[in-house]
Amino acid sequence: MTDPLLAAVRDGVRLIELGQPFFTGMPCSPNHPGFRMTLARRHGDAVRPDGGSAANEIIVTGGHVGTHIDALSHVSHDGRLHGGVDAAEAQRGGAFTAHGAEHLPGLLCRGVLLDIARLHGADVLPGGYEITAGDLRAAAESGGITPRSGDVVLIRTGWSRHFPDPAAYLGERTGVPGPNVAAARWLAAHGIVATGADTTAYEHIPPGTGHRVLPVHRVLLVDSGIHIIEHLALEDLSACGATEFTFVLAPLRIVGGTGSPVRPLAAMSARLDESEAMR
Amino acid sequence: MTDPLLAAVRDGVRLIELGQPFFTGMPCSPNHPGFRMTLARRHGDAVRPDGGSAANEIIVTGGHVGTHIDALSHVSHDGRLHGGVDAAEAQRGGAFTAHGAEHLPGLLCRGVLLDIARLHGADVLPGGYEITAGDLRAAAESGGITPRSGDVVLIRTGWSRHFPDPAAYLGERTGVPGPNVAAARWLAAHGIVATGADTTAYEHIPPGTGHRVLPVHRVLLVDSGIHIIEHLALEDLSACGATEFTFVLAPLRIVGGTGSPVRPLAAMSARLDESEAMR
Amino acid sequence: MTDPLLAAVRDGVRLIELGQPFFTGMPCSPNHPGFRMTLARRHGDAVRPDGGSAANEIIVTGGHVGTHIDALSHVSHDGRLHGGVDAAEAQRGGAFTAHGAEHLPGLLCRGVLLDIARLHGADVLPGGYEITAGDLRAAAESGGITPRSGDVVLIRTGWSRHFPDPAAYLGERTGVPGPNVAAARWLAAHGIVATGADTTAYEHIPPGTGHRVLPVHRVLLVDSGIHIIEHLALEDLSACGATEFTFVLAPLRIVGGTGSPVRPLAAMSARLDESEAMR
Amino acid sequence: MTDPLLAAVRDGVRLIELGQPFFTGMPCSPNHPGFRMTLARRHGDAVRPDGGSAANEIIVTGGHVGTHIDALSHVSHDGRLHGGVDAAEAQRGGAFTAHGAEHLPGLLCRGVLLDIARLHGADVLPGGYEITAGDLRAAAESGGITPRSGDVVLIRTGWSRHFPDPAAYLGERTGVPGPNVAAARWLAAHGIVATGADTTAYEHIPPGTGHRVLPVHRVLLVDSGIHIIEHLALEDLSACGATEFTFVLAPLRIVGGTGSPVRPLAAMSARLDESEAMR
Repeated sequence: MTDPLLAAVRDGVRLIELGQPFFTGMPCSPNHPGFRMTLARRHGDAVRPDGGSAANEIIVTGGHVGTHIDALSHVSHDGRLHGGVDAAEAQRGGAFTAHGAEHLPGLLCRGVLLDIARLHGADVLPGGYEITAGDLRAAAESGGITPRSGDVVLIRTGWSRHFPDPAAYLGERTGVPGPNVAAARWLAAHGIVATGADTTAYEHIPPGTGHRVLPVHRVLLVDSGIHIIEHLALEDLSACGATEFTFVLAPLRIVGGTGSPVRPLAAMSARLDESEAMR
Repeated sequence: MTDPLLAAVRDGVRLIELGQPFFTGMPCSPNHPGFRMTLARRHGDAVRPDGGSAANEIIVTGGHVGTHIDALSHVSHDGRLHGGVDAAEAQRGGAFTAHGAEHLPGLLCRGVLLDIARLHGADVLPGGYEITAGDLRAAAESGGITPRSGDVVLIRTGWSRHFPDPAAYLGERTGVPGPNVAAARWLAAHGIVATGADTTAYEHIPPGTGHRVLPVHRVLLVDSGIHIIEHLALEDLSACGATEFTFVLAPLRIVGGTGSPVRPLAAMSARLDESEAMR
Repeated sequence: MTDPLLAAVRDGVRLIELGQPFFTGMPCSPNHPGFRMTLARRHGDAVRPDGGSAANEIIVTGGHVGTHIDALSHVSHDGRLHGGVDAAEAQRGGAFTAHGAEHLPGLLCRGVLLDIARLHGADVLPGGYEITAGDLRAAAESGGITPRSGDVVLIRTGWSRHFPDPAAYLGERTGVPGPNVAAARWLAAHGIVATGADTTAYEHIPPGTGHRVLPVHRVLLVDSGIHIIEHLALEDLSACGATEFTFVLAPLRIVGGTGSPVRPLAAMSARLDESEAMR
Repeated sequence: MTDPLLAAVRDGVRLIELGQPFFTGMPCSPNHPGFRMTLARRHGDAVRPDGGSAANEIIVTGGHVGTHIDALSHVSHDGRLHGGVDAAEAQRGGAFTAHGAEHLPGLLCRGVLLDIARLHGADVLPGGYEITAGDLRAAAESGGITPRSGDVVLIRTGWSRHFPDPAAYLGERTGVPGPNVAAARWLAAHGIVATGADTTAYEHIPPGTGHRVLPVHRVLLVDSGIHIIEHLALEDLSACGATEFTFVLAPLRIVGGTGSPVRPLAAMSARLDESEAMR
């Protein structure tokens, strides 16, 4: 018997990038160490007897730098991680012994795009725009799609268009659009596995307030055990018009860490793509 | 029309881990910077007014540390990268302007396991065992499988069983099993996209020789443009008996880098799995 | 026979800080990796059987971050380091084989302060102020002091008062005061060993130009073999009114590096200090 | 009135290196992150319009890597730092708010060498040799010297001769020579400011025991507020026969850190040196 997944894969798939590139100088919250890639050995530094030469690098980064997914160890409330785990106890020893990034699941599941920018006919939502449960519901309806248990829900604000300009992207003066608590609760009620957005914080950040409080992180990570994906690149996905797709994610199993850099992908049958094109 | 890929995914998939965990002290060739994850902010360091607290880390690593995939910029021969690109020119500026890790493809394709350890009835191939083209051919036949264009071919030596003991795993005294040049050419002739193994070097390393020459890297990366995946964990995949599967890989797009840490996954339809179990 | 140096030291010395503290978030040119100190092990992470516990950290920094001294490998002109050394050849292998930071001398010598801010009756020289040879000559005369062979000459601009405000201190919009080429030549003609200032670049940086060219670095490092010390803290030294003093510097011998973080100190006989106070 | 310190300095000083060089691959306890210097920008990467080019590096290290001095925040006993400071409280926030490395004093003071290897007629003391208070007393007498308040006392074991061989130097199998608790108490009773040795741990480490307990660290750092200097290079100082000298140390003021890399120097009047040579 043929594996239907493998059969579909062998028929050809089209992959759409959902992650940002990693480079020195890319936007990063000052709370995190940023990203730095430095070539350590270059070609010619040590040529082998046979004419071969290998180059390599050193990388300094963090679990919440660039496109990444939050482990459940990332946020606590009143000293507790998800499931009531004592945060102080779990981090004793300098690496989390519960909810560490090594427990981040690999994902090959349905992804759903709730395109809030498109819903409002905007390329980019205004800085500090508060995405409501009503927005999510309207985007789902307009996309003919309902989040289901096990799905990953991606919320598009269009904000990644600011990615090339780090100050604009971090939005300290303008604020950053993001879901409010009621929107997060609406998502949590659908039993999703993870949710992400094309911004730095997956929070509604009013202008000038910074990341003083993170109520949506609490609802998702602490209360609901739902992972958060940040710094997504959703322009290509939005442009192709898909509202559901195969979502691919493979976080690094960083033992005791609080998050992992990732490169999420949306996958579609190439054949479907052609037939769609024919219409 | 339903996307057959998404339909298969929604019917349920089983994911098998092919990557090693990342932790301070894990095996790493002395050529590379090793891996270090240090919690920078712990819960309680800065509690927000609402009782929330976020923990995060700093990570020092490299593009060839832990389970990773080589970009084509990694190896040169006589000053040339794949396709005749001038290595010195491409690395001018401190980051590769050609064949950098940002060009590493996301992969959702057929994977093929050539289980050389199983072929020889061994849990682990001996240190320094030279895997020949004949071995690969025999493993393919015994698995009822032929590598095809676009496939990823994984070679199992069983060596990852030494992973918990860094000195044994690096095998300086014992050597490390791996494919020889003829085996690499046999693979290249099949038009595969990438190939990997459960060792540190994807080379046949005789005892006491270290990594002085890397002829297989040349054949694959420089001559053929085929990416190499190292430090795979193939025990679970071997145990489940699959010889073909859906291979999932999402390398980070590290601009100008020479490789990326990854978490490869093998995916199978869960339904198939059950029906297989019924037989 | 008593060592007169040791006798003077045993009579008591007063040390004046000339270095800035090192902390995460301190001012740093974007050309350099910045400074980050992260506690890796904290007390309580691993308590020993006897009740003891040790804390330690990981530090990411660079040779030109914070108060530091430039090795002669730092700057080249037309491909040549000081003394005509071929820069490309010297850096082959990924660490300098000539003029590396391991050759930076320890210094216990006469230091001379040329207080240009005081000369002009200013707390801080204006951004982009060009310090001329005439300025240096006038400051030397007004201080009753002439630089001599083997001295270290420190130039005060008052700019370190901006250190707490990184954007002001880096001075991208305002420019940064510093010596021009003629001033550098005047210094070089006196046979000094090293020279430093209380700014980021030891160059006259006009507003809005950034560090596009570094002519003073060329005169000092490449042409004259004179080390440059940057990011000095000279307010305390200026306040005490000394124009000559014992200068103390102990750069780390970073093999093949281009500079070293340092903590320069000015030393004076404590007894002198008292007698001065009595006048 | 002339400053007698400056007068002695201007008469010429001879500096003797007491620090080890810093390089990738140098010996480092596995408790610490090791040292890695990687050139980030090389000459030719970005040539300026005027033909100038600057090279720089990224450095990953720790406060207890290479020759370094311990801040009082480094070790606690029963949860208390020196002076009864609550360790948990002081480290809250991820950097020490008490006894951090920014409080490490610059030192220009008398140094005393207690040459225990020479006392026993050995080039190197045996691994695991326990240096007693009697040894220290005998070395002081034989050197005609008594530690006094404000001194820095250096203890020579000869062990730095193993520095080029990291495994031998760390001495996991052999043990490492060092002072016992009574020796540490004898030193503390003399009111010294700091003490150092030419080994990794400044402790008597019996073969095969590792650094499980650090009783000497407790006596010095916690009970007495005396800083410890490790990984010294004392062969040159021993060879010149000096038992007292001017000791120079300028630790980096790393805010909230637990130690600092340093380059200690011994200084002597050059004139004395000549007259000594004449005898």
